[in-house]
Amino acid sequence: MQSGATSIAYETIQAKDGSLPLLLPMSEVAGRMATQIGAQYLQLDRGGKGVLLGGVPGVRRAKVTVIGCGVAGTNSIKMAMGMGADVTAIDLSVKRMAELDDLFSTKITTLFSNIDNIEKSVRESDLVIGAVLIPGAKAPKLVSREMISQMSKGSVVIDIAVDQGGCIETCKPTTHQEPTFVVDGVTHYCVANMPGAVAQTSTYALTNVTLRYAQMIAKLGVEEACKKDDALKLGLNIYKGDLVYKQIADDLDLQYTTLKI
Amino acid sequence: MQSGATSIAYETIQAKDGSLPLLLPMSEVAGRMATQIGAQYLQLDRGGKGVLLGGVPGVRRAKVTVIGCGVAGTNSIKMAMGMGADVTAIDLSVKRMAELDDLFSTKITTLFSNIDNIEKSVRESDLVIGAVLIPGAKAPKLVSREMISQMSKGSVVIDIAVDQGGCIETCKPTTHQEPTFVVDGVTHYCVANMPGAVAQTSTYALTNVTLRYAQMIAKLGVEEACKKDDALKLGLNIYKGDLVYKQIADDLDLQYTTLKI
Amino acid sequence: MQSGATSIAYETIQAKDGSLPLLLPMSEVAGRMATQIGAQYLQLDRGGKGVLLGGVPGVRRAKVTVIGCGVAGTNSIKMAMGMGADVTAIDLSVKRMAELDDLFSTKITTLFSNIDNIEKSVRESDLVIGAVLIPGAKAPKLVSREMISQMSKGSVVIDIAVDQGGCIETCKPTTHQEPTFVVDGVTHYCVANMPGAVAQTSTYALTNVTLRYAQMIAKLGVEEACKKDDALKLGLNIYKGDLVYKQIADDLDLQYTTLKI
Amino acid sequence: MQSGATSIAYETIQAKDGSLPLLLPMSEVAGRMATQIGAQYLQLDRGGKGVLLGGVPGVRRAKVTVIGCGVAGTNSIKMAMGMGADVTAIDLSVKRMAELDDLFSTKITTLFSNIDNIEKSVRESDLVIGAVLIPGAKAPKLVSREMISQMSKGSVVIDIAVDQGGCIETCKPTTHQEPTFVVDGVTHYCVANMPGAVAQTSTYALTNVTLRYAQMIAKLGVEEACKKDDALKLGLNIYKGDLVYKQIADDLDLQYTTLKI
Amino acid sequence: MQSGATSIAYETIQAKDGSLPLLLPMSEVAGRMATQIGAQYLQLDRGGKGVLLGGVPGVRRAKVTVIGCGVAGTNSIKMAMGMGADVTAIDLSVKRMAELDDLFSTKITTLFSNIDNIEKSVRESDLVIGAVLIPGAKAPKLVSREMISQMSKGSVVIDIAVDQGGCIETCKPTTHQEPTFVVDGVTHYCVANMPGAVAQTSTYALTNVTLRYAQMIAKLGVEEACKKDDALKLGLNIYKGDLVYKQIADDLDLQYTTLKI
Amino acid sequence: MQSGATSIAYETIQAKDGSLPLLLPMSEVAGRMATQIGAQYLQLDRGGKGVLLGGVPGVRRAKVTVIGCGVAGTNSIKMAMGMGADVTAIDLSVKRMAELDDLFSTKITTLFSNIDNIEKSVRESDLVIGAVLIPGAKAPKLVSREMISQMSKGSVVIDIAVDQGGCIETCKPTTHQEPTFVVDGVTHYCVANMPGAVAQTSTYALTNVTLRYAQMIAKLGVEEACKKDDALKLGLNIYKGDLVYKQIADDLDLQYTTLKI
Repeated sequence: MQSGATSIAYETIQAKDGSLPLLLPMSEVAGRMATQIGAQYLQLDRGGKGVLLGGVPGVRRAKVTVIGCGVAGTNSIKMAMGMGADVTAIDLSVKRMAELDDLFSTKITTLFSNIDNIEKSVRESDLVIGAVLIPGAKAPKLVSREMISQMSKGSVVIDIAVDQGGCIETCKPTTHQEPTFVVDGVTHYCVANMPGAVAQTSTYALTNVTLRYAQMIAKLGVEEACKKDDALKLGLNIYKGDLVYKQIADDLDLQYTTLKI
Repeated sequence: MQSGATSIAYETIQAKDGSLPLLLPMSEVAGRMATQIGAQYLQLDRGGKGVLLGGVPGVRRAKVTVIGCGVAGTNSIKMAMGMGADVTAIDLSVKRMAELDDLFSTKITTLFSNIDNIEKSVRESDLVIGAVLIPGAKAPKLVSREMISQMSKGSVVIDIAVDQGGCIETCKPTTHQEPTFVVDGVTHYCVANMPGAVAQTSTYALTNVTLRYAQMIAKLGVEEACKKDDALKLGLNIYKGDLVYKQIADDLDLQYTTLKI
Repeated sequence: MQSGATSIAYETIQAKDGSLPLLLPMSEVAGRMATQIGAQYLQLDRGGKGVLLGGVPGVRRAKVTVIGCGVAGTNSIKMAMGMGADVTAIDLSVKRMAELDDLFSTKITTLFSNIDNIEKSVRESDLVIGAVLIPGAKAPKLVSREMISQMSKGSVVIDIAVDQGGCIETCKPTTHQEPTFVVDGVTHYCVANMPGAVAQTSTYALTNVTLRYAQMIAKLGVEEACKKDDALKLGLNIYKGDLVYKQIADDLDLQYTTLKI
Repeated sequence: MQSGATSIAYETIQAKDGSLPLLLPMSEVAGRMATQIGAQYLQLDRGGKGVLLGGVPGVRRAKVTVIGCGVAGTNSIKMAMGMGADVTAIDLSVKRMAELDDLFSTKITTLFSNIDNIEKSVRESDLVIGAVLIPGAKAPKLVSREMISQMSKGSVVIDIAVDQGGCIETCKPTTHQEPTFVVDGVTHYCVANMPGAVAQTSTYALTNVTLRYAQMIAKLGVEEACKKDDALKLGLNIYKGDLVYKQIADDLDLQYTTLKI
Repeated sequence: MQSGATSIAYETIQAKDGSLPLLLPMSEVAGRMATQIGAQYLQLDRGGKGVLLGGVPGVRRAKVTVIGCGVAGTNSIKMAMGMGADVTAIDLSVKRMAELDDLFSTKITTLFSNIDNIEKSVRESDLVIGAVLIPGAKAPKLVSREMISQMSKGSVVIDIAVDQGGCIETCKPTTHQEPTFVVDGVTHYCVANMPGAVAQTSTYALTNVTLRYAQMIAKLGVEEACKKDDALKLGLNIYKGDLVYKQIADDLDLQYTTLKI
Repeated sequence: MQSGATSIAYETIQAKDGSLPLLLPMSEVAGRMATQIGAQYLQLDRGGKGVLLGGVPGVRRAKVTVIGCGVAGTNSIKMAMGMGADVTAIDLSVKRMAELDDLFSTKITTLFSNIDNIEKSVRESDLVIGAVLIPGAKAPKLVSREMISQMSKGSVVIDIAVDQGGCIETCKPTTHQEPTFVVDGVTHYCVANMPGAVAQTSTYALTNVTLRYAQMIAKLGVEEACKKDDALKLGLNIYKGDLVYKQIADDLDLQYTTLKI
């Protein structure tokens, strides 16, 4: 603000339908990464119980529970299916589960999100992935510590949305430097910036969606670009040094200025 | 024998590799029927627990365990997968399970046949299909009454090979007239001639494999045909009134005559 | 009404887009059941022609025609594919058929709904499933008695929406006690409450969608809940003893009271 | 022979199990080409009835019958499935059809090879591909002219093994210069050297299997190479000017010399 | 106009969401045809490099790039996958590519539409299909002559939307009489009316969508039908001899009359 | 030997067809692990180039080359396909590649094993997995250091059979303690005992195949068991203190005693 700069935040660019187009690709990457990382921490040399996600013929497959079947959760499911796990997908939306049934047919189990289903499924799982993200709101704690403590030792828990609260009681954000901690014998991986580990893929994914905004601004200037594109306008956080995004001003107790473009 | 007839039995026509070509199609039919019939008896109006094999999106799929992954068992598995069930296939042969993994990939779970795996899988199942057939020998009783009694009420058990002993302790042959009985709250369907219920399909399937023998005999006469085809020769049970099949003579304590063709 | 009760009907809870969220899961169950039941009545011991839906290798697969590709029809199609039948799906919406082509690719045939296509497909079918449901309107009689009479003896016809008129001329509602009747040699199964036969699955499916309304009412009371949720409000049929749903009042010639919430 | 050369023929190199390893890749190419070329000649601008193999959503798919499910036939089936056709595969071997059922599941229809099945399937087909190849013997004429004449005008018939007799009565070899002729309104494509049209693919495919023989000969000389590899030895037709392959000597009435290596 | 006729143009019947329902089926047909025709022109006997789309086991598959993943492009992709090609799909919409990932999973590669991706993918391709159609606007020239000239000799380029400009610089409309021309050694197929080659399929596809309009007009007369259906009304080009479609009047410099219905 | 013990080695139990039944499950585990571990080391936080195996929609998938398509290689391929990579499978056996084409259809590319194919494919790959195992012989060095040095920085190379020589020139055995080293910017993972990292899965897999031998020995004693089972007999290395396995005696220059059972 002191420099008089104008700044646009990726995470507040928002389309009319409430979707966040610049966060989308990161959800895809994080969802896929979550399964891959879960597979790693199930390895003995990473402190896991020494189970292969897909087992081998004649030996049980690992059980994976994914809670929340939005973009991130669906991508976790795809990888878990691909690696041969026995996947249970849990969601509140019957409509979304019918869509998964269309796409994945009999390859996974879909269960309605209620305490009984979550408790039973978590308890029997080798890997639990939390992927509940409610834009602009804290996710409810669907998985309690008690459920976690019933998982067998050396199991793994990952919360994709941990930086926005997450849906698993025992999760708290970690970093790539110290990515995991153990609660009740269960490894917790909660790196907030998972896509950073596959930076090449993530950068291209991000550029694919940001490029058109960059081009618009380069061509038209910020003002005209924001007039033309409402989603972009919502991305404006600081305009010529003034803080013009209400919620941030409130959260940080800073001076709010009404945007005039 | 008194009529002086010559008779050839389907079930003793045997190829060099020990396979029984005229029984093969009946195994295919019986395997597919077993799942279809299991689904019926899980219906409430047939005394079942009222569960749909594939569930619906958000509601658990029925669990089906198939013991024995030969021709019959594999066909049961195909139908169970197709109807959306959560299928566990159990077999002694690691090689066979690797083949199933090639064909069905991550759509089913394969488990090695041992007591632990069978007990756990049977106990959690809605439908258990026994498909263990050892040519010329009694199948071992892999599923005990104790395991059956641990299944939840209204579950269903089917033994495809019940007429040759079967692999489930509580099974004994029944008929299309009175196809089922109940043990410990679990419906048992053990009709020995399951393919009879889809006679059109079965007749064509059988004709496909018998036709060439009929044609050979019509063209060459029994003697020449049997000389030319060793498998057919093994099918000869009575030749011009003489009993020429050793094992049957022994079993029935009848006069055995050495075949001279 | 005399008891002064307030009653909410599942079938009139209606979302803005005209969909009936509490009927949806029953359509899923009924669609899947229709194929399973069709397979049963094609068995010889149930009066059918003795044909297995999927045939076996070398023997023809049964031909199944599904008319109407909404929720119920699509679920019938999934089961019919899964059981190995040769499936033809008929619908008026080219858009819907393109979606089926996306999902099922070359595993089924899709045909536009016109007399020629229906007549030819019905005539050649072993099993015809009617799944045309037009909310708030009678379905047109797309399959005439003449078409039915051209089917071969021992074929099966099922009309999922028979309680709302159905789309097959010869169908009239039956019950689980006497589920079928025969017209021109063709078995008709027209149980209005098909999902009742898999009550466990159906109950969970229904609870998945009703729970949130029950919770809202428990928490807020009927009045506040209905104010907050327009779909629920449409479900109100009797409010404190007054009949407040116009169409029912008209249909039953009872006193109608305008709802005041 | 006059030049005193030694020559080895691809088509007589034969493994112990009777297979012809150097002809295999050409069967793969020819099988795939047959479907592709069939699709072309169904186009109106090539004299066909103007039908797209896979139809489009709402419009019937073309019906393709493949007779003979060896290497060539299976590759024709794969392409026909891939292009969306309604495929019927006909073979004498129930075992082979069970293998196809394992691989292609419910995506195709398999029928036992008898006159009824062939006649009905050919009559209703838009494209018939003959792929019956019996090594060292003439294929039986399974498709008669009468059957062909019952196909609708503008249909297409292709015989992959036409140079060795073929299994379709009306087929006779043609060339890339004049690839087709018409019988009873049905286009016949019978180019003996189909793989020549995709020479790049064919050359690599052929080289993949011939290279090791070339390397052996280069390294060891013909004599040692033939001693070491029985299949190669059978490929020797002329050795230092002498005709050493009995059947060719007989067929062409030339002097036969016993091979002495 | 002189005859006083009333005429309705398929291509201007337009739904509220801007879609053109009567052009849709032609996009489906053209998309599928494009791959089929591309496969033909890769044959040596059609001037191509002699490559089979799917290769054979052990030999490389042809590389196909489809630019634009709307209805036409998606249908080209389906056929190319089905024929075994190595497919790259390029589009500007990340959302559309995520949908393709749902449907086709790991069977194709999806790439964001930018110069780098297009250039690299075109250069390495055997077949490039342009399928960019922007209703009411010229498509941008995404593939330059320079890119085309880097393709290897005997490759093929097809532009499905060539009659509306197309997205490939070197393409210009051709006819079924003279369908192709060669630029820099690359065969260009640019027939504007591709679906004409499969007239039977196309006619049914078109009738499926036009029938209801014909029925409405027959029943209600043009005036009432157009009042009732806004999409149809937009199809009116000439009404009782008057030109009532503004854009055509402008384009052809003719007298425009305001429609009064 | 000094203790007078009798010892049986897993790795020399050998069936008549030359297969090693007790090593089989370890090949399955190692094959699947190789892909999973490759994915890890492509992560930035493990020194990789930061690429996700399956990419995301719109971003390139990683390219994986698997050399050798036996048990281990095929399992690597399955995982790589499942994780969404662009897979190339290279083998010398055209027959094996045709089998892969049957199973995986158009989801992977198969290439014949020659220098050109290997060089091009390795150069363009993000992950190369060597899975060439020739029982009783050293694998040829198919991938040279020069090829490795052409891979882009941060790529990964894994040799599953490194403990038996391996097929990649730059590979040498490593341990779980120090699993990787870098050559020319390419990470090499060559842990000889990969299955140890998923000990639970591996133990069950191994027990599935060893149990029957243990049972035989427990029941019959070593002598009788070895008489009854030739494969087991070949497993005898030391018998009552005498070294009875010739090759080991030769390799270690120890006294060899002829086995007398």
